[in-house]
Amino acid sequence: MAHTLVRGDLEPLLLGGCFFGSGGGGTIESARGLVKHFEKGAYYPTDKVRVVSKDEATEGDAVMVAYMGSPEAIDGAAYPIGPVMAVQQIQARLKKEGRHLAYVVPPESGALGFTVACLVAAKLGLSVVDGDGAGRAVPSLPMLTFAARHVDPRPAVLVSQDGLTVELDVTPAKGTHGDRQHQVDVSVIVEQMMRPIVADPEFKQFGGLAMWVMTPGKLKEALPITGTLTRALEFGRAVSEGKIKSVDDLLQTLRERWNVHGFTLAPTGALQGAAVDTSGGFDLGTVTIKAGEETAEVLYQNESLLAWASDRAQPLCMAPDSICWFFEGKGDAVASNGDIVLASGGLNPAYSGRPVTLIGLAADRHLRQPDGLILDSFMQQVNQLGYRGLYVPVERLVGMTQEEVRHG
Amino acid sequence: MAHTLVRGDLEPLLLGGCFFGSGGGGTIESARGLVKHFEKGAYYPTDKVRVVSKDEATEGDAVMVAYMGSPEAIDGAAYPIGPVMAVQQIQARLKKEGRHLAYVVPPESGALGFTVACLVAAKLGLSVVDGDGAGRAVPSLPMLTFAARHVDPRPAVLVSQDGLTVELDVTPAKGTHGDRQHQVDVSVIVEQMMRPIVADPEFKQFGGLAMWVMTPGKLKEALPITGTLTRALEFGRAVSEGKIKSVDDLLQTLRERWNVHGFTLAPTGALQGAAVDTSGGFDLGTVTIKAGEETAEVLYQNESLLAWASDRAQPLCMAPDSICWFFEGKGDAVASNGDIVLASGGLNPAYSGRPVTLIGLAADRHLRQPDGLILDSFMQQVNQLGYRGLYVPVERLVGMTQEEVRHG
Repeated sequence: MAHTLVRGDLEPLLLGGCFFGSGGGGTIESARGLVKHFEKGAYYPTDKVRVVSKDEATEGDAVMVAYMGSPEAIDGAAYPIGPVMAVQQIQARLKKEGRHLAYVVPPESGALGFTVACLVAAKLGLSVVDGDGAGRAVPSLPMLTFAARHVDPRPAVLVSQDGLTVELDVTPAKGTHGDRQHQVDVSVIVEQMMRPIVADPEFKQFGGLAMWVMTPGKLKEALPITGTLTRALEFGRAVSEGKIKSVDDLLQTLRERWNVHGFTLAPTGALQGAAVDTSGGFDLGTVTIKAGEETAEVLYQNESLLAWASDRAQPLCMAPDSICWFFEGKGDAVASNGDIVLASGGLNPAYSGRPVTLIGLAADRHLRQPDGLILDSFMQQVNQLGYRGLYVPVERLVGMTQEEVRHG
Repeated sequence: MAHTLVRGDLEPLLLGGCFFGSGGGGTIESARGLVKHFEKGAYYPTDKVRVVSKDEATEGDAVMVAYMGSPEAIDGAAYPIGPVMAVQQIQARLKKEGRHLAYVVPPESGALGFTVACLVAAKLGLSVVDGDGAGRAVPSLPMLTFAARHVDPRPAVLVSQDGLTVELDVTPAKGTHGDRQHQVDVSVIVEQMMRPIVADPEFKQFGGLAMWVMTPGKLKEALPITGTLTRALEFGRAVSEGKIKSVDDLLQTLRERWNVHGFTLAPTGALQGAAVDTSGGFDLGTVTIKAGEETAEVLYQNESLLAWASDRAQPLCMAPDSICWFFEGKGDAVASNGDIVLASGGLNPAYSGRPVTLIGLAADRHLRQPDGLILDSFMQQVNQLGYRGLYVPVERLVGMTQEEVRHG
């Protein structure tokens, strides 16, 4: 049902987004930096955000809007200038065609994904659709349902935080528009395009992407994962209000309230260390957790994609299933990898002394479709991290451990 | 005056283009690979190419067409599919606006620049304008007169050899359309865009770029360097026919026929070695020439940009002035760095045993304009190669040597 968020809702929303972001989706710090400047005034015409359900989004077209950039670069941003300008360009283009942009759609569940969508909507007088492309944060565009459901990725508009605007119209070498190869081609090009923007201080290292314009009919089809913005908001409120204190509370709430199946991947322990390995040509982060004699490792590229225990032959959890942080004690209960690991490479003292549990969440079924673009894209990333086996759902991996224990 | 090239003209054209390409502009080998397949038949509707002067190019719009990619990748290409499709896309776009594309303009003087422009024109029934954006080959788009004269770089169409098409519309953060910053922004984006295409075997590592659409009026202004295609053709014929046998012949012909001021940079010697250094984050090639006790070094990134002698405190020649190879004895008299240095890193035996002279050519005055986009862009590259001083024209550098000798 349509409802309105006020400024105070954005803090719990970003916390909840962060939890469901599987260690990625933007840092709490960067999302808070944007929210801090969200007030009615010279930049924002309102400090309220209208949220509608997918079924209510019938008054015009919708477009996905995402931030792109490194968390460190986004930390310094006060306003989402790139994402706003990207949506404005789509708005102008649709207007020329006699169409009307009414909605923005968050790309993913994450602290920044939801925050940016809300702020762009407030800035431009649009509404946010309650849902996103994955129900978690993802490292690459083909992992979103908009790609899997073949929404035409043309045009794609990229705008850097200083206003450099690139409109991209990619025609695939083969196949029909919007198909699997087209989505992969566009993704390669867009991600490549963003590199100078993300790397070049001149472009402020932070940009916005507006892509996948959807009519109400196409939105229905391409956004099967819904209610996730509200889920993040309610989750954030619950942790903020101290209603989720323990891992048991957490797993029970997830299951009862949102039918999300969560699993304890390793005993509650403490963060032990962090490392970043760039030798393979990309930044591979690792966080180690120690609980008694057991250590577990989380491998991430922005998002956590693979978790191992030192005493097992198979992973604890792999993408597309989520690997989420849950901290007990004083301070934020949730965190992204960018919040836990400082730019210096060391652990953030706000988290390093506290009891921490690694939680696996069963991915939405749309992410697990065999031979689908989404699952294949996730497994390609997981394979790059060194796991060469097949996808095994977290509930089965957890079962495999128990069996070993029973026969041990 | 308008004239028609036949198939047999393309061999001398590519040889002449290669000489004026300052060591870059595509290899003789790759250009010959394309020319070999140029015959009237299933792909080409004609084996003739109509060439017009700038003043004759009044029947419609013109667009620059360039190949992009590594010489090695282009060696395997039989047809210029990417460049042809890029121009077709511009053609279709202009048609929609009630305009008519009549001409293609070569980007630069070079074996491939001229060859590709001619082949695209033959394939699509267009004419080639006799001129190019620099009178030499260049490593980056802002070094072309189209950029310096502020031709609107929108749209830019990039097509990979397997048909992946990207239409780019870049709006600068600040300034008016087509201005200096806009050209630099577009260049950064286009060059970044080409990386996955040039690097990814899936895209065939070879692409075409069509950009800078010009009305006849804009063409007049943006193409100050003319007659260079005919110059290359005549030069190529002269060397092929054995009319330029010695360095003296060469310098005399250049000056008398085309008013090009050439200088012997170092005594005639032999190629001694080649090296590629990737430690600075880009591929920097070096070729060493030895003549008696003296050695000279040519530094290149595709194009030769800087030449040093071991016994001098200042360079022998620096971009935008050209540094060209001239070989005596049996075999091709001209060569690009890609022809001289094999993919393995070693010297090509077709050149390594022969007398070779390094020739400096004074750049066209449009490339030497103080504080201009072109000179600044060249000097930025030259600075990256380790020379931190100011631009000194080759005729002054040559004079400095003589003075030293006089006082020595």
